[in-house]
Amino acid sequence: MAEIENIEAMDFDLLVEKRTDELTELLDKRDMKQLKRRMEEMNEFDVAEFLTEIGDNRMPMVFRLLSKEAAAEVFANFEAPEQEQIINSITDSELAAIIEELYVDDAVDMMEELPANVVRRVMRTATAETRNLINQYLRYPENSAGSIMTSEFVDLKKYMSVKESFARIRRIGEDKETIYVCFVISADRKLEGIVTVKDLLLADDDVIIEDLMDRNVIFASTTDDQESVSEKFSDYDLMAMPVVDKEGRLVGIVTVDDVLDVMEQETTEDFEIMAGILPSDKPYSRTSTFEMWKNRIPWLMFLMLSATFTSMILTSFEDMLAVQAGLVAFIPMLMGTGGNSGAQASTAVIRSLSLGDTEPKDAFRVMWKEWRVSFLCGLSLAVVNFVKMLLVDGMVLHNDVITVAVAATVSLSILFIVMFAKVVGSTLPILAEKIGVDPAVMANPLISTVTDAVSLLIYIYVAKLILHI
Amino acid sequence: MAEIENIEAMDFDLLVEKRTDELTELLDKRDMKQLKRRMEEMNEFDVAEFLTEIGDNRMPMVFRLLSKEAAAEVFANFEAPEQEQIINSITDSELAAIIEELYVDDAVDMMEELPANVVRRVMRTATAETRNLINQYLRYPENSAGSIMTSEFVDLKKYMSVKESFARIRRIGEDKETIYVCFVISADRKLEGIVTVKDLLLADDDVIIEDLMDRNVIFASTTDDQESVSEKFSDYDLMAMPVVDKEGRLVGIVTVDDVLDVMEQETTEDFEIMAGILPSDKPYSRTSTFEMWKNRIPWLMFLMLSATFTSMILTSFEDMLAVQAGLVAFIPMLMGTGGNSGAQASTAVIRSLSLGDTEPKDAFRVMWKEWRVSFLCGLSLAVVNFVKMLLVDGMVLHNDVITVAVAATVSLSILFIVMFAKVVGSTLPILAEKIGVDPAVMANPLISTVTDAVSLLIYIYVAKLILHI
Repeated sequence: MAEIENIEAMDFDLLVEKRTDELTELLDKRDMKQLKRRMEEMNEFDVAEFLTEIGDNRMPMVFRLLSKEAAAEVFANFEAPEQEQIINSITDSELAAIIEELYVDDAVDMMEELPANVVRRVMRTATAETRNLINQYLRYPENSAGSIMTSEFVDLKKYMSVKESFARIRRIGEDKETIYVCFVISADRKLEGIVTVKDLLLADDDVIIEDLMDRNVIFASTTDDQESVSEKFSDYDLMAMPVVDKEGRLVGIVTVDDVLDVMEQETTEDFEIMAGILPSDKPYSRTSTFEMWKNRIPWLMFLMLSATFTSMILTSFEDMLAVQAGLVAFIPMLMGTGGNSGAQASTAVIRSLSLGDTEPKDAFRVMWKEWRVSFLCGLSLAVVNFVKMLLVDGMVLHNDVITVAVAATVSLSILFIVMFAKVVGSTLPILAEKIGVDPAVMANPLISTVTDAVSLLIYIYVAKLILHI
Repeated sequence: MAEIENIEAMDFDLLVEKRTDELTELLDKRDMKQLKRRMEEMNEFDVAEFLTEIGDNRMPMVFRLLSKEAAAEVFANFEAPEQEQIINSITDSELAAIIEELYVDDAVDMMEELPANVVRRVMRTATAETRNLINQYLRYPENSAGSIMTSEFVDLKKYMSVKESFARIRRIGEDKETIYVCFVISADRKLEGIVTVKDLLLADDDVIIEDLMDRNVIFASTTDDQESVSEKFSDYDLMAMPVVDKEGRLVGIVTVDDVLDVMEQETTEDFEIMAGILPSDKPYSRTSTFEMWKNRIPWLMFLMLSATFTSMILTSFEDMLAVQAGLVAFIPMLMGTGGNSGAQASTAVIRSLSLGDTEPKDAFRVMWKEWRVSFLCGLSLAVVNFVKMLLVDGMVLHNDVITVAVAATVSLSILFIVMFAKVVGSTLPILAEKIGVDPAVMANPLISTVTDAVSLLIYIYVAKLILHI
């Protein structure tokens, strides 16, 4: 955020940087009055960023300059370590005030990240009502619609008029996460429809909600996966989505800003899984060395041990490779090409599955397509490699072992390896999806271990066939 | 979407599936009247999905059942092939009606995807005003804020009262992408502030906009990257963001539904780049075999040819490896472990860079952290490998070449290789970001080619040192 009046160049990031410098100067001069005034004008996200950047024990002191409302909003924008630092430096009554001001989804997020003793103190200071609400929300499974929803929405009744609805929105709207989508519920809290403020504004005052509301509601159940919730937001261009329980009762809403966070989180998780890292909620800069080791070592260890098969294959054909020692030089290239080909296919298919573009029932269509693509890719690589081996390795580098037969062996192996890698790379993720495993697991590291072993076998058998060894 | 009244089980996806079956039945019975009635009640995204699923020449006929407004909305939800099919089967006046109803960002998206001859026909049928607007928007660079913004927003003046503002929103709001955020501009169209409908609703009728508006505007410039726009939406929890030109004049707005699409698109692009695929806008299922070959072959070819270095290294140490033939068996495992370690580090750092959690200035902190993590990982792997080689390869598989010295050689190599791979894997993406190259390029395939060659050299020199060969 930036005061439009001060704009010299229209560059938002520069303006933010300049302001941070000014705030730091005020802090160093200990001009708390001016600092407080500036922070009150700022967006709560920027205040949280600024406070995080202070990074020392002056931070809680500066935080306490904020008004009660601003304090809660800034607090919601902190990450867990700063939240903990604040909680440990304020009084019980200050803490209680913040907890009551927080949206319940932000409070729940916080509870999931904080250490147990801090959680106990928070729960002790909260009112009984808030405590019950938080406890109820904490019971929804991780990454479910229930775990990301919030309780601060505007509910209307279908017999209300537009005028009455606006009166209700004005009365209770202040503290709601959104007022632009209102939820029409029956006496027993069953969801009957939704109505937007746009509908209300464009209608006459005496129209009844029942005649205005949209009964075609896009909704989620509390146990739905958060990924399917975010897919619906993007498909239907939603601002907010109601979450209902098994009986169709409205229990909460998910707003689009939470969906942006879900998308970031799910993407990070996919990246991590595909690189053989155990997924964690913590950002890189906040993860300790030991935690990083814990997240990375399982796959590394498993993949290293699985490579025993490759070693065994190589050992058992040792005599043959000794006859044609030159063949060994091309093993890394063949394995690399197989691994890269498989990674391309698996990544493309995994992404397509997660966007809902490919479904398990498309397995044969995908396989057939990858078969053709891999034939084209394999053929192009084989031809170029054949020419390269004869010209570069043979004539320029004077490698004596390169004969036409050896070049043909390596090139034909490339063709088969690429075809194998691409077809397996594209099929395994679909298979995983079918049996309910995250397809991302079937990505690069695992597939390359399989293709490594098979590449080697292909190479050895092609060599036997062509070179008669 | 689903009629709440018909709900038996609260499962949204089942309800949608059931409805699609009913619609298909109506179509097969040729009950067009009933089909039209059902489609008019549905969400435009669902209608578009249903029409796409028809997948034959009945589709345009069913499309023409829709009312004028519904037609444009459904049309905007189509992908390019269906848009083309429709355009080729309707009259010029039907086409003109759809074009005028489209939001300009949807029209621009469409123009970028359609073949040239179809674009010409669309432009010919549009009014001069629409044509100029589309042409102006098409000039913004790809993936810039300008290229995703739209022109349908509510503008207010700061001297207006709340009552006058509501009157204006009611008058012009119908066709705007959002009415919930209104943009306050001066006589020369400079952006002065924003005001939300929530602010307006909670204020008295005679308050003046100037006293209500927020001057701390989060804005983008037309040339800003769309990724930085989507980051701001997620940081500041925005619904809409103004886009200004170099003089600070408001030229368009970006809405949160477009940001969801941008995030999906950017994620797909990152996945593709990291797997060595040239990024394309087309979903997997819509990409032809030839296009897939074109996107995949450049990196495969480049990486295959770069592996020439590895071959050369192996060839030049051929004599040495012949003495200790058993050493060859562990080369794939060492290269694989190096590749996996590098991929973990590069993926973690690339993701952290793209979330703004790590910045180029953190290079040394990242390197130091990876150094410690890689030492822990390398040590764990080395110890396990040492024991495994002596017990499994040596005693169970009776591999005679395995001595304590050989096991020590391989294990020590693992330690060095993992440390090299992790430090290089984490540093290259930061270097790329610093010099303005997409860090994702520095991901798996490229790094594994570098680590392959270096892993081999490390192995050979460790072997020379320990085995004295």
